[in-house]
Amino acid sequence: MDYEEVEGAREYVARLEHGRDWRGQIEDFADDEGIDAAFFYGLGAVQDATLQFYDQESQEYEDIEFDEPLEVVPAVGNISWLYDERFAHTHVALSRPDGTTVAGHLDTATTFAGELYVREFDTTLEREHDEVTDLDLWGL
Amino acid sequence: MDYEEVEGAREYVARLEHGRDWRGQIEDFADDEGIDAAFFYGLGAVQDATLQFYDQESQEYEDIEFDEPLEVVPAVGNISWLYDERFAHTHVALSRPDGTTVAGHLDTATTFAGELYVREFDTTLEREHDEVTDLDLWGL
Amino acid sequence: MDYEEVEGAREYVARLEHGRDWRGQIEDFADDEGIDAAFFYGLGAVQDATLQFYDQESQEYEDIEFDEPLEVVPAVGNISWLYDERFAHTHVALSRPDGTTVAGHLDTATTFAGELYVREFDTTLEREHDEVTDLDLWGL
Repeated sequence: MDYEEVEGAREYVARLEHGRDWRGQIEDFADDEGIDAAFFYGLGAVQDATLQFYDQESQEYEDIEFDEPLEVVPAVGNISWLYDERFAHTHVALSRPDGTTVAGHLDTATTFAGELYVREFDTTLEREHDEVTDLDLWGL
Repeated sequence: MDYEEVEGAREYVARLEHGRDWRGQIEDFADDEGIDAAFFYGLGAVQDATLQFYDQESQEYEDIEFDEPLEVVPAVGNISWLYDERFAHTHVALSRPDGTTVAGHLDTATTFAGELYVREFDTTLEREHDEVTDLDLWGL
Repeated sequence: MDYEEVEGAREYVARLEHGRDWRGQIEDFADDEGIDAAFFYGLGAVQDATLQFYDQESQEYEDIEFDEPLEVVPAVGNISWLYDERFAHTHVALSRPDGTTVAGHLDTATTFAGELYVREFDTTLEREHDEVTDLDLWGL
């Protein structure tokens, strides 16, 4: 395991805005506050969601679309630099009225309501291309 | 996104008590320690669970009951004031012997075993009625 | 609820190593850094996984094997002493190309990619046998 000891910096409690994209507003927040490294987790509900599954063979993301209200149980992710933009890498599990669950890498989702805890670290995390997985991973 | 920068305060590692309600004992703990704002996450198992799904159209919670042993994978939530009581807003994903999963907003569940990390913040979070969603959300 | 107030100690951001066991490399990390109490959460993907379900009646773990690529949404767990070894108690929810989800107690899984936040506490957590559940739980 590659790792870096980090110093905790600012901490935030947030309420996601109704009707806006879940991941996009986390990235806007990171830009506004100048957050270059953070982890976050939270809970809530969305009006729809597009998840993605990374095919480990073809090394392509494939979209999975859900056009229905879903609970967010939970959202977990982190903020780091992906080339020239801040990126909120986010995974979510989502549940339906009968409790059945879908999950994956979050692309977009229209927020119904959401609550988040964000912990910033006093460093800069940057993603770079990884040859083995064809993903953009931290160069720790 | 509405947010508040918070200062970290006390931190706790907890073992949930066998046979007691999962959420109720977190709220009792918050009362005993005087915790007015916190986030938590953890894992464990329950003997049964009543989840809830918030119908975004009718704006009512609907119960989903599971009378069976289930793993808790994970529980995430937060502690804040809901009118005159501390409330542990909790979402859980729960799994069966074959790994199939149900998830949602946790109402009640009889704890089999549970392990929790709680991070308190040096503020008071209070919920108030939100007209758009008809939920009680933080006034950040 | 039994609990202990803890002091936060070191914090780490980690990238799990491709091709190695998910849980094993967290335990090796804990050994290398001398971590005696921590909580962690993260996200990623695995090439296969063996989950376990603890049968609350027979009090035995039963294996559930998945020989397929899966997203990790999320992993949550903690590090403590289990008799004479550090143990990373880990629960994961795992998702397939269509978003369907399985979850449970993680035994082994071959990492495809993974990102983790680890928070150490300035204490030592030790597990001991619990007669009621036949599990090894913290003696807080």
